[in-house]
Amino acid sequence: MIEASICTIGDEILIGQIVDTNSAFIASQLNLSGVKVSSILSIGDNLDEIISKLSDLLSRYSVVIVTGGLGPTKDDITKKALAALTNSTSFIESREQYAIIEKIFYNRGMEVTQLNREQALVPNNCKVIPNYKGTAPGMYYSPSADKLLFSLPGVPYEMEALLPSVMEIIRSRSKLEKIFHHTICTYGVPESILAQRLSDWEDNLPKEIKLAYLPNPSTGIKLRFSVYGGDENYVRELINKEIELLNKLLSSDIIYGQERDTLESVLNRVIAESKLTLSVAESCTGGRIASRIVSLPGASNIFRGGVVVYSNQSKIDILNVDKDIIEQYGAVSKECACDMAKKCASLFNTDIAIATTGIAGPDGGSEEKPVGTLWIGIYLKGETKCFTTKLSGDRERNITRFSSEALNRLRIELISHKQA
Amino acid sequence: MIEASICTIGDEILIGQIVDTNSAFIASQLNLSGVKVSSILSIGDNLDEIISKLSDLLSRYSVVIVTGGLGPTKDDITKKALAALTNSTSFIESREQYAIIEKIFYNRGMEVTQLNREQALVPNNCKVIPNYKGTAPGMYYSPSADKLLFSLPGVPYEMEALLPSVMEIIRSRSKLEKIFHHTICTYGVPESILAQRLSDWEDNLPKEIKLAYLPNPSTGIKLRFSVYGGDENYVRELINKEIELLNKLLSSDIIYGQERDTLESVLNRVIAESKLTLSVAESCTGGRIASRIVSLPGASNIFRGGVVVYSNQSKIDILNVDKDIIEQYGAVSKECACDMAKKCASLFNTDIAIATTGIAGPDGGSEEKPVGTLWIGIYLKGETKCFTTKLSGDRERNITRFSSEALNRLRIELISHKQA
Repeated sequence: MIEASICTIGDEILIGQIVDTNSAFIASQLNLSGVKVSSILSIGDNLDEIISKLSDLLSRYSVVIVTGGLGPTKDDITKKALAALTNSTSFIESREQYAIIEKIFYNRGMEVTQLNREQALVPNNCKVIPNYKGTAPGMYYSPSADKLLFSLPGVPYEMEALLPSVMEIIRSRSKLEKIFHHTICTYGVPESILAQRLSDWEDNLPKEIKLAYLPNPSTGIKLRFSVYGGDENYVRELINKEIELLNKLLSSDIIYGQERDTLESVLNRVIAESKLTLSVAESCTGGRIASRIVSLPGASNIFRGGVVVYSNQSKIDILNVDKDIIEQYGAVSKECACDMAKKCASLFNTDIAIATTGIAGPDGGSEEKPVGTLWIGIYLKGETKCFTTKLSGDRERNITRFSSEALNRLRIELISHKQA
Repeated sequence: MIEASICTIGDEILIGQIVDTNSAFIASQLNLSGVKVSSILSIGDNLDEIISKLSDLLSRYSVVIVTGGLGPTKDDITKKALAALTNSTSFIESREQYAIIEKIFYNRGMEVTQLNREQALVPNNCKVIPNYKGTAPGMYYSPSADKLLFSLPGVPYEMEALLPSVMEIIRSRSKLEKIFHHTICTYGVPESILAQRLSDWEDNLPKEIKLAYLPNPSTGIKLRFSVYGGDENYVRELINKEIELLNKLLSSDIIYGQERDTLESVLNRVIAESKLTLSVAESCTGGRIASRIVSLPGASNIFRGGVVVYSNQSKIDILNVDKDIIEQYGAVSKECACDMAKKCASLFNTDIAIATTGIAGPDGGSEEKPVGTLWIGIYLKGETKCFTTKLSGDRERNITRFSSEALNRLRIELISHKQA
């Protein structure tokens, strides 16, 4: 099995100013192609350290992929490190990349600056992978038949566009053994309870299968099966058998999908299949539910729109919520959530409506209605139901989980509605 | 200067299933206290590798912070690795953590399971940092006077709650030298153009100051000044002088804030100071702008609400957009954006309204209105203005940048309105 290491370069990572999302993307792509990522390392903008760490990684792994430090600004020094590492004697201009740079600037109606032109310079020992989305080219270098060192820009959008070429180069060099993963998505049962319910089954898993629990406030707990190598049909069958057993242990209330499914993507599918339409009325979630639904391409097939009624007055004025309900029960109440859902469906003329009202914090809580309190209203073809939950987290986490709870609740209602 | 390394454990990171956000959080906290993070390493759920890598890191750095692998499930093996590393002879139950576990389950109205009880077990050589937010305790181990190894749970919310205790333990052991950072936030000028405009100034920066460019679709380009060590007053003055020069080179149209400011936090401040109120009408951004504004605690002081009018009909029915405008110019047009902003302000009775209409992709583009086209309408105290921009990116990136463009545009309008 080919082993790889990913190395991301930049002080901004080490001082915690940005989160390194590139590594996860690269790792997932390598993994899909059967390259095992054995380590991910982040180091700073320090020439000597870059040279020493890259040379160390290259001695231990067959493939090393570096991102970052290729920008036009003075803090970008990866190219210098590559030149040192490859004993390059000079920098040469990549004509192909320079043509792209010219075109990018021409399209923007701007002149190419000296700084931009320098982006096309590469160490003479490196091969170029042209970057059509930006000015800094990808580069690679192969010190021996079984070693490959890649350098890619740190801008995620550009790096992602270059990765297919990287994968092709790796594949042309090595015979890759498959890595199999299968992921089952669950929502609504805490990790320890889930683990307890699955304990006996887990003890009896075939030894080839590795199981992992991946909790996340947005997607619930994902269960990942992994098998390294082996015959594809055999492995698929092995995993499918275990998934069948798992489906018996957990109901479809809990298992909502597989692989990269999210609560919103599953909902989108179910609603589209039933040719229904959806609208949302959000108070405490402040647009997060709408935003999660709209993040899916094709959302317009099911989604008519939403309101963010963040004040009592807007609940009354725009959504037409009964003023007496708010006065008598408060905006964070079962009655208000129900009325919001009903009025939302009527406003947007949709088959389904989700409403949320609650207290995300840090302020606004009381003894009776503490921070973390959520009321969900679900309108589904003439019927309105309400649900409540109490969470504990900071504002951001509460808003994320509030929106997940509401999406999941609608999902369960749709299942039982379909079965009825 | 104390040097630290962060090590995150979990196959889910190496196969790219999750993005490691813990490292950035820990790094930022260490940095603030004057501990320099020299490397961040992610490795898999493999006992031998965990032991060997941790022992290597411990030999090279004074502080090593490990997260992950402490869950109640069978794939969590960090505790075993710690036991081996510390030559622990047995596991003992932490009474303090067990009491917390009992309380957590009591509050949920549930019994403590055997799996949960085992969470309170720790290697006998480790000291415990109680975890009040979850079941797995933090642990630390000090093989010598100048070495510290910490193990924290991987759940971000729990890890974040334990970090203050970690910092206190580090501080009680070592005299920490300060690391100074100052960040200036810009929006609207591409990185290479910005670098060119700042090139001469950058060449003349005092050698103690390290400058970095940090581009991001949500926050624009942040410019970070860093100085390692030195007298606080001297360094602050040094940095302040350069910021003064920078302010002369870039106008307040471009510089919008500093440090952790975001477009939405700055807007929130400016609008609150002027005692104005805001509403939003979103088509292509689908609730993202509302969601960004509501993410700020205290948003209710300025934000009255929003509508996500994702269909033409909802634009007409809910927002009362002129039907003729949509028929004549289309929904993605200057005229529609203007009308949306005006009608939104009127619907929510606010001083300000932002409206967006555009094509986020991947479908829905035409030659005349390609994917990436955005129209922004800004209503400000009786006047409506419209702006357009064309971006190129995938759906997610376009939605993020669309919302940033709209927030930034309102910010600039508010500045010129204030000055007028």
